[in-house]
Amino acid sequence: MSEDRPGPAGGEAGGPQFDFLLQEPLSRARGGDSLQKQLLRRLRAAVLDGRLPAGSRLPGSRALAESLGVSRNTVTLVYDVLSTEGYIEPSKQGTRIAALARPEPENRAHPAPVALARRTERISGRDSGGADSLLFTPGVPALGHFPLAAWRRSLDRVLQQGGTELLGYGPPRGEPALRTAILRHLALARGMRCNPEQIVLTNGAQEALSLCVRLVADPGDTAWVEDPGYGGAQTALACGDLTVVPVPVDADGLRTSASDWEDRPPRLVCTTPAHQYPTGAVLTASRRLDLIEKCRLHGAWIVEDDYDGEFRHSGEPLACVQGLAPGAPVFYVGTFSKTLFPSLRLGFLVLPEPLADRAAPVVDELLRGGHRHEQLALAHFMESGQYGRHLARMRRLYRRRRDALRTALAEHFDVPHTVTGGDSGMHLAVRLPPDVPDQALARAARRHGMGPRPLSRHSLLPDAAHNGLVLGYGNTPESAFTPGLRQLARLARELD
Amino acid sequence: MSEDRPGPAGGEAGGPQFDFLLQEPLSRARGGDSLQKQLLRRLRAAVLDGRLPAGSRLPGSRALAESLGVSRNTVTLVYDVLSTEGYIEPSKQGTRIAALARPEPENRAHPAPVALARRTERISGRDSGGADSLLFTPGVPALGHFPLAAWRRSLDRVLQQGGTELLGYGPPRGEPALRTAILRHLALARGMRCNPEQIVLTNGAQEALSLCVRLVADPGDTAWVEDPGYGGAQTALACGDLTVVPVPVDADGLRTSASDWEDRPPRLVCTTPAHQYPTGAVLTASRRLDLIEKCRLHGAWIVEDDYDGEFRHSGEPLACVQGLAPGAPVFYVGTFSKTLFPSLRLGFLVLPEPLADRAAPVVDELLRGGHRHEQLALAHFMESGQYGRHLARMRRLYRRRRDALRTALAEHFDVPHTVTGGDSGMHLAVRLPPDVPDQALARAARRHGMGPRPLSRHSLLPDAAHNGLVLGYGNTPESAFTPGLRQLARLARELD
Repeated sequence: MSEDRPGPAGGEAGGPQFDFLLQEPLSRARGGDSLQKQLLRRLRAAVLDGRLPAGSRLPGSRALAESLGVSRNTVTLVYDVLSTEGYIEPSKQGTRIAALARPEPENRAHPAPVALARRTERISGRDSGGADSLLFTPGVPALGHFPLAAWRRSLDRVLQQGGTELLGYGPPRGEPALRTAILRHLALARGMRCNPEQIVLTNGAQEALSLCVRLVADPGDTAWVEDPGYGGAQTALACGDLTVVPVPVDADGLRTSASDWEDRPPRLVCTTPAHQYPTGAVLTASRRLDLIEKCRLHGAWIVEDDYDGEFRHSGEPLACVQGLAPGAPVFYVGTFSKTLFPSLRLGFLVLPEPLADRAAPVVDELLRGGHRHEQLALAHFMESGQYGRHLARMRRLYRRRRDALRTALAEHFDVPHTVTGGDSGMHLAVRLPPDVPDQALARAARRHGMGPRPLSRHSLLPDAAHNGLVLGYGNTPESAFTPGLRQLARLARELD
Repeated sequence: MSEDRPGPAGGEAGGPQFDFLLQEPLSRARGGDSLQKQLLRRLRAAVLDGRLPAGSRLPGSRALAESLGVSRNTVTLVYDVLSTEGYIEPSKQGTRIAALARPEPENRAHPAPVALARRTERISGRDSGGADSLLFTPGVPALGHFPLAAWRRSLDRVLQQGGTELLGYGPPRGEPALRTAILRHLALARGMRCNPEQIVLTNGAQEALSLCVRLVADPGDTAWVEDPGYGGAQTALACGDLTVVPVPVDADGLRTSASDWEDRPPRLVCTTPAHQYPTGAVLTASRRLDLIEKCRLHGAWIVEDDYDGEFRHSGEPLACVQGLAPGAPVFYVGTFSKTLFPSLRLGFLVLPEPLADRAAPVVDELLRGGHRHEQLALAHFMESGQYGRHLARMRRLYRRRRDALRTALAEHFDVPHTVTGGDSGMHLAVRLPPDVPDQALARAARRHGMGPRPLSRHSLLPDAAHNGLVLGYGNTPESAFTPGLRQLARLARELD
């Protein structure tokens, strides 16, 4: 817009409607808003609230600038913005206030009931968030034992050496160096079979779970979940508008039945085979092979969520389902939230080999890469052996804590209970009698700085066996076990 | 599993089936796999491929250890893992190979056609990814002008001072310090009205768009998008299984019609009001107020994608739609990919005030926080004024580049064309005559190291007016404009 368009010089432009601009002087405080911004805001507000009615002619920029004691350029720029935004418009007799659609006052409130999507009704109020620092919160690793100084050095090295090229988006599926490092580690440690093109780096395991759903499941498709099971998987499935079918878990892991396969065959089967969450069961080889076979027959896909399989307390980590058969119909989901630290928010998905060629272009459209410095720092951390050493240290630490927690439960938690799990990972499941309702106990515990999760929160079907607590020991020091469990026992008795 | 369970001592256990274990000695190379891992792998493979048939009795751990020249403990641990995994099981006569479900060879391939979800058919092959470093790639800021050293210091300061507490998940909606800093900036710069509880930090703008869909739209709901428009929005809507309706754009931005409101009322209206992508139009105040009003009447929500509104080249950045009316039904989506750098992968969503109380708990279930160091480094960057100074520098740089690109187009791009946009941001839209098909030109350009996007890729409806190129100048130096445009003109002529 050119300098001369706003109102021609002359008495008829401007007028008393514009007096409000002069009633309060513009603020010239240092560090405050610019004069331009203040003038703009006042004029917009006056148009919106009707003080400047449609058709009013603007004062000339020179006249207004003089009245306000600002430079003419300031007024011109303000008029430019208002013109771009459509608050003012040129006319034959100079620039005028535009006629704006103005809502009737009775329409001001959102009239329709403020409705969320149907799926969110299934998600809302699940309250899965544990505070990182509460005693016994599951799923949080030993934050104080992370080699933060070494990590800082790895990250700073990348920031310093990577140059500005690393500031761009980068490959949608993530940095090739990290994908290769993950593949090497998983092939050795877990018997993974894949190539780097199948690996997708994600914003935590949750994005990996969402990707599985987006790639292969349509709304209304059936997904099987373990019951009790991991709430995050249920959330990801609910977000994809899938029908979630709970499947029971026993000491051998997920227990599917012929009638389930017949009556409600799944599109996705979500499972935690290495260390069932929360019961701790290991899915047996026989059930793994059977699951692969059945999924192949039914065109279904396994989602193998391997959230803490690195921390096996006796002997080697277990092999993954993914590597059990060539071309197995398995999405493998991994995360560094437990092996490194949660705030890194870095997970990954291994695409099933039979699907990889078709899924990769879709993934490249859905994701935007990013977080390249963190990914390259981690690649260096893994290739230099620091990751492996950290895992080994953490395995020892968690085994000690697991042993100590079992002992403390036996000696100091004088409420009838049975303990399951504990071969891997960072938590024990403690079943409680029905007269100790777990959700009430967890609420009481929270008031005392403790964050165990109620077992029943992980169940879709009501079942008395799913009353209890998930006690995390990842980020809880041994010294807190005895006083914590005594306190929990006291709280349990008070619930009676 | 205890030491003595695997096979009793005695000649009948083990036998010739186990000879394969001895045929090739275990590798003792330093840095290679542990003996335990090798033994485990061989035994698993032999069970899976049938060399060890179900019911075979395992050799005693002492005997096998002696034959292999390994410690008995190694064998015991291997047997433990195999037992946990269900490859072997106890029997009255010692430990035996378990009977595993074994797929028939003809079932080995996935029998059902390997199908992706229906929605992915709409996403696959869109090929929106431009390489960061190609000339004229839109959407990439001036990477070489980012104050990387200052950012490194900000980040390292947080890593050093934040301690181990920051390694945890943190609040799902992100660090309060950054949410407050964003709010302060937006209230001043863009007239945003909200409180920090409405702000959600996301993994780039793409996650913010997905969240809008997840929160309020059910599969089959209608969403309006600008045509031509931003492909990322279409992807997010397709992922939510919405029906996408293209709505035309003119010089005043999104042009909705009474019949559209009547015949196919939307649940979501996606728009880029500050600088329409890719045409560059600004949505006028009158249309903004009308859109708010209509959305209120129809229970619809505006998704205001403000991808580059900070870079307005004349005068102040424009006010946002979100702040235009109290309680406006607007999701505001912002990103730091353009103002800082894409690899940071940090965006945000401002929840509409009328929805915030109900949506916040759902968001807290969907997101897991994380990236806390980056978020706090950015909060410091903003509060210390470094962000504002960087924005001001980049505004000047992009204005210079915009002017230079306009000049170079007029002087050196001797193909008939019209230029639109350029009041804000980092790209110009250049319309071309129909005899220069834009997709072929973009493909040819790519072979010469240039990444302009074909305009027709942004259109859902075929329209001759949408033939042209989106020329990004964010990350392309002025010196490359003239040779680049001459090359593009040559390539355009060769297409004839």
